[in-house]
Amino acid sequence: MSFDPATLTFNEAGLIPAIAQDHATGEVLMLAWMNAESVARTLATGRVTYWSRSRQAFWAKGETSGHVQELVGLHVDCDRDTLLLKVRQTGPACHTGARSCFFTKVEEGEEVVTA
Amino acid sequence: MSFDPATLTFNEAGLIPAIAQDHATGEVLMLAWMNAESVARTLATGRVTYWSRSRQAFWAKGETSGHVQELVGLHVDCDRDTLLLKVRQTGPACHTGARSCFFTKVEEGEEVVTA
Repeated sequence: MSFDPATLTFNEAGLIPAIAQDHATGEVLMLAWMNAESVARTLATGRVTYWSRSRQAFWAKGETSGHVQELVGLHVDCDRDTLLLKVRQTGPACHTGARSCFFTKVEEGEEVVTA
Repeated sequence: MSFDPATLTFNEAGLIPAIAQDHATGEVLMLAWMNAESVARTLATGRVTYWSRSRQAFWAKGETSGHVQELVGLHVDCDRDTLLLKVRQTGPACHTGARSCFFTKVEEGEEVVTA
């Protein structure tokens, strides 16, 4: 079946969460949001393009930072309301400079920064 | 710093997306939603408990299916608006019987079912 981004299930704002995972290490790097056009652009260009909820604009990841995400594989979940992107990440994925955005771990009730 | 679920950033429905990842293989299994009380219950019991948006009720994963998720680690992202759960998954994570919910892959414009 040919894939049409319009057949995904978007929330009331027209967005779907997209998980970015390092294709080689399996590390989960970040979660951001896409609209149908973001998904189409990502597939057409091979560069991951989110929708920035704060800026209300397309967000071609790494456009200004150079920390681009090259799409290796796109997966859709069973409910068609979440995407999993396998990516080749250049530099850190997180705006803080950390490789992954998930660098805070909860250990025995305490927050521990691991990066 | 001690961790308080109330300090997370929830959406307008009081929910935060939670990614479940197999702690051993790195496979991303599913994404579901939690409210503050789900997070607290998950930490208190060591069993992952989501909030079911369709049933509007707590969803102790595996309660009926037996396909429980034992919490191995809980990570918070930089914006405090997404959780990453490292889990020990018993049986399939997906209600379809697939190990992961992300069994549909987009390849050269076509949807390919990989499980």
